[in-house]
Amino acid sequence: MKPSNILKSLTSVAIVVALLTGPAAAQVESTIDQETTFVFNTFMFLVMGFLVMWMAAGFAMLESGMVRSKNVATICTKNIALYSIAGLMYWLIGYNLMYDGVNGGFFGSLTWFTYPAAEALKTAKDYGAYAAASDWFFQMVFCATAASIVSGTLAERIKLWPFLAFVALLTGIIYPITGAWKWGAGWLETQGFLDFAGSTLVHSVGGWAALTGAIILGPRLGKYTKGMTNPLPGSSLPLATLGTFILWLGWFGFNGGSQLAIASFENASAVARIFANTNTAAAAGVVTAMAVTQLVYKKVDLTMALNGALAGLVSITAEPLTPSFGMAAIIGGVGGAIVVFAVPLLDKFKIDDVVGAIPVHLAAGIWGTLAVPLTNPDGSFLTQLTGIVAIGSFVVITSTIIWMVLKTTVGIRISPEDEEKGLDQAELGLEAYPEFGAGSQRL
Amino acid sequence: MKPSNILKSLTSVAIVVALLTGPAAAQVESTIDQETTFVFNTFMFLVMGFLVMWMAAGFAMLESGMVRSKNVATICTKNIALYSIAGLMYWLIGYNLMYDGVNGGFFGSLTWFTYPAAEALKTAKDYGAYAAASDWFFQMVFCATAASIVSGTLAERIKLWPFLAFVALLTGIIYPITGAWKWGAGWLETQGFLDFAGSTLVHSVGGWAALTGAIILGPRLGKYTKGMTNPLPGSSLPLATLGTFILWLGWFGFNGGSQLAIASFENASAVARIFANTNTAAAAGVVTAMAVTQLVYKKVDLTMALNGALAGLVSITAEPLTPSFGMAAIIGGVGGAIVVFAVPLLDKFKIDDVVGAIPVHLAAGIWGTLAVPLTNPDGSFLTQLTGIVAIGSFVVITSTIIWMVLKTTVGIRISPEDEEKGLDQAELGLEAYPEFGAGSQRL
Amino acid sequence: MKPSNILKSLTSVAIVVALLTGPAAAQVESTIDQETTFVFNTFMFLVMGFLVMWMAAGFAMLESGMVRSKNVATICTKNIALYSIAGLMYWLIGYNLMYDGVNGGFFGSLTWFTYPAAEALKTAKDYGAYAAASDWFFQMVFCATAASIVSGTLAERIKLWPFLAFVALLTGIIYPITGAWKWGAGWLETQGFLDFAGSTLVHSVGGWAALTGAIILGPRLGKYTKGMTNPLPGSSLPLATLGTFILWLGWFGFNGGSQLAIASFENASAVARIFANTNTAAAAGVVTAMAVTQLVYKKVDLTMALNGALAGLVSITAEPLTPSFGMAAIIGGVGGAIVVFAVPLLDKFKIDDVVGAIPVHLAAGIWGTLAVPLTNPDGSFLTQLTGIVAIGSFVVITSTIIWMVLKTTVGIRISPEDEEKGLDQAELGLEAYPEFGAGSQRL
Repeated sequence: MKPSNILKSLTSVAIVVALLTGPAAAQVESTIDQETTFVFNTFMFLVMGFLVMWMAAGFAMLESGMVRSKNVATICTKNIALYSIAGLMYWLIGYNLMYDGVNGGFFGSLTWFTYPAAEALKTAKDYGAYAAASDWFFQMVFCATAASIVSGTLAERIKLWPFLAFVALLTGIIYPITGAWKWGAGWLETQGFLDFAGSTLVHSVGGWAALTGAIILGPRLGKYTKGMTNPLPGSSLPLATLGTFILWLGWFGFNGGSQLAIASFENASAVARIFANTNTAAAAGVVTAMAVTQLVYKKVDLTMALNGALAGLVSITAEPLTPSFGMAAIIGGVGGAIVVFAVPLLDKFKIDDVVGAIPVHLAAGIWGTLAVPLTNPDGSFLTQLTGIVAIGSFVVITSTIIWMVLKTTVGIRISPEDEEKGLDQAELGLEAYPEFGAGSQRL
Repeated sequence: MKPSNILKSLTSVAIVVALLTGPAAAQVESTIDQETTFVFNTFMFLVMGFLVMWMAAGFAMLESGMVRSKNVATICTKNIALYSIAGLMYWLIGYNLMYDGVNGGFFGSLTWFTYPAAEALKTAKDYGAYAAASDWFFQMVFCATAASIVSGTLAERIKLWPFLAFVALLTGIIYPITGAWKWGAGWLETQGFLDFAGSTLVHSVGGWAALTGAIILGPRLGKYTKGMTNPLPGSSLPLATLGTFILWLGWFGFNGGSQLAIASFENASAVARIFANTNTAAAAGVVTAMAVTQLVYKKVDLTMALNGALAGLVSITAEPLTPSFGMAAIIGGVGGAIVVFAVPLLDKFKIDDVVGAIPVHLAAGIWGTLAVPLTNPDGSFLTQLTGIVAIGSFVVITSTIIWMVLKTTVGIRISPEDEEKGLDQAELGLEAYPEFGAGSQRL
Repeated sequence: MKPSNILKSLTSVAIVVALLTGPAAAQVESTIDQETTFVFNTFMFLVMGFLVMWMAAGFAMLESGMVRSKNVATICTKNIALYSIAGLMYWLIGYNLMYDGVNGGFFGSLTWFTYPAAEALKTAKDYGAYAAASDWFFQMVFCATAASIVSGTLAERIKLWPFLAFVALLTGIIYPITGAWKWGAGWLETQGFLDFAGSTLVHSVGGWAALTGAIILGPRLGKYTKGMTNPLPGSSLPLATLGTFILWLGWFGFNGGSQLAIASFENASAVARIFANTNTAAAAGVVTAMAVTQLVYKKVDLTMALNGALAGLVSITAEPLTPSFGMAAIIGGVGGAIVVFAVPLLDKFKIDDVVGAIPVHLAAGIWGTLAVPLTNPDGSFLTQLTGIVAIGSFVVITSTIIWMVLKTTVGIRISPEDEEKGLDQAELGLEAYPEFGAGSQRL
């Protein structure tokens, strides 16, 4: 369990307040008794958690809309499978590796998560500030989000099972270890690194893994020919739009739930403020991305507007509480602008990112993490940079090892013939739209 | 902040009850302390608010399904942009114009909304009955809904940026001013006008703005030829169905959250009753619209069933609390029937409403507002009519001015060539479905 | 009202605990006062209830994706209509037939549900443990779920209005009667039959009704020719995937809300544990279904992965609280495997189930009900079997009578010409995708 959880939540229990002396603890006094607090926080975790779970559907729709019709069924398969694998791995290995006894170190214990005995007991002192299972659920859906980021970048050319093998290691080992450094009260937490809801811990982790994979896997056939970048447009922009709206909705849970408590004047106010700031950053991301594309390219691009929303959301994720409305708009707006410039930059290096996940989750994630000290006086630019570099290095190194082992053993890329034909035919033997598009040509 | 908010919510705090003397206040006694009440109401606003936010996705899907494939990407762009602009304008101008110091008058203050200092303070008396940011969030998503209504009616022929300019003025100025008259405790509130969740304040405001725009913009090419009305069917009825289900789900937040408080026997019972009545009205709207189309046209029409659901929802919005199940079914059922007859009526006047937003939001919105006195003894038919006419006149006049200024300066309608080609090609230079439909013809 | 409701919920009120003596009651002590408990439970029912309502959209999308494009508008019409009819029938007949005065018997009273007078009164003793309307809402969406199951199986060949007539009787009479046996405190409850959230009471009831209908209606034209089973692939696998994610999300409400109370350490812990177990069973269902299809057919099948998720969810529904993570994974995993083998088994008997609802909801529902004694010591294998057989027999007999009466009077199957043309043209006179697929061929 996160120590920060315990700090924030337990302190809202009046009887515990007396035991705490620091100024942070003193801020969160509450007259609400322990059992009511427990119910509030648990209910909040479950509601915010199901919103984050729903983001898995958002990624599935975003990616379904951004790939060509011949690869849609495969990306759907990957998305439902990766969410499932994350759910199992985070129970079997991830949660305790991230939270159990990290104590300022690098990782926790290699045990699986079980419901604590306290939940079967009868006295108040056996209970914490929320149900352990609700915290597990909330943290599990975060872990799944990191994996969702990878699937979009590597779409249309990676083999199904090797991709899922990577997901198992990402969600069971890589994400929990870097998570332990901060949220598990490891060495980065000790250093004072700040990352409220995971611009770095979730989004950049997914982004670095995606970037590493994209470089090792190489671009799709026909993406870069004779020095030209060919767009290879996705099959359904309304599904991509739906996916973006789902992600935006889910993000209220992602950021709001990361307050980890709601049962006091201050915690409830904080969650509300996080909702407002999260929405403002996303809105500014959309408007900025649209304005910049209009100015630079003389046309608005829907996919840029969508990625602008997501970049705004990623940017505010490292610190959604302390900014004013105006600062939230600036932080999100800069994120929206970053995306417009990062997309062609990747193409310049021939790094093929099918949905733009690297600009959105990695570039805006770094920006958001660096922006924390702008509004939070506890933040230090140098410490933020330390965290970004440390986590980035770890993820790049471990991901590279895993991708290379998979590449040299089972192989990670489908054959050029299968890529031409589409993964749906090659890997699943079916069609996403058998009567339309690629499917109808075979009728 | 709404005075009705304060009345309903603060009265649920036991310590405040003693200060109040009216019979309405006496009804809402509660033994729940102020801090617990604050947490309940804030949490309720956030949950109901995210449901209403989700309605933005519902409008996007409904409209994506109801326009032809050559205009789908543009309608997606408009929907994510209008929600973003509403979020920024309502912070910069709208909220305080609607709620800050209206005092029985016509509008509030021209200042932007900031988080009140009270939220950083430590004593209970600095807090109200809910977090200010949660109320801002809940009211902002209502404002966005009004703008969503306009985009559907004007689809397939309006230019992107002029439409968004109208949205900025609608969400920053028009909606907040008429909102101030009732929810901001302005002159209509003083008169006793009743509109619980906004049949008039939200849905008719959007509907009047859409109607004005549709008349000034003119119908789509080929819609009305030689005295005939041509259907121009939408590209994806499953997306339109999805959009309707999203709106239905979101409406539980729209109506339920408008109780503005949940922390007492009576407030919780009221929210529950609103959920049941809202669902019943929508269900009756569907069944009535289906039955009427079967009787009149000898066939069921899916789009009429969908609009029947929405009309039932709009109809019950002005008063979802006082009706019995039976009255809720009647109010919603009449709404469903109204739509079936209003759609061909608009066509008779050659007013081209792509998704049927005027019948659904304006016609059923007027019906719902007039129906309030049927179940609420505090309602007066004459006062309801006063509100409808006053708000309608204001929105029609201000919208006409804005549309005409836009028309005579930057222009609001794309060229006939671009309309033929589709807005996606003309305005965005891309395709919503590059492999299907209009897109595939260019492959 | 469910007696189990009253037991679980009222016992969380401290003042009532003293009146109860059984060991079950003693487990759920709480220091939270009655009014706060009332607000918590009501809010919980509304949140979990809107998640289950959202499942109606999930079924609509799953079925839209699994039928051919010529039948998509009709399946959308059926889904919005069946949800509406369920909402009206469950008010007019269903709820009181299921809950009002069953007393160990076979059904309740033939009266419609009204808001109890208690909700207008002022004293705490007039209120129960939650708002009556919130319970009605929660139970109504369960009833609608049973009807949703039927529409998928019988798609692409059943007439619209006769199908809706069956839905009216299923939701108004059949489902409430079998529901009364257990949740209405009827004879099966007396016997000790266990079905926490309805593997049998909801999913098998829908499954048996679907099976009976499929046999009486016969398979689609061209499904079984010369001893071969032809796949007739669905029109949009991303919509089927979206539907599955919606159902997964909704299931947290389905199972979590069935705890019927949240306002104590133990109830909140129970709801949290149910969320974790529900997710784990679904995840295991996906992984198992994928692994089994890979082993048996040498390819992963997306529709099997989706149905694996749903089968895992159905399997854990009869008992989502008592299993450990490991047992939840096993119960869900077995469900996922059952689906892979049940689908071809149905085809062997030439029973044409368009979406696989019988394997998912009936087969996995039986498995889940039988699995209860594995983790819940109160469960008896024989009593579980009694419940399965009794409910199955009742639903099969009553459904057969209704289907046969409809068949011999108005007819239930469209003509072969109309089936060839598609129900959208034949029954609605429109196209789901007028520019793509079947629609575009008529342009």
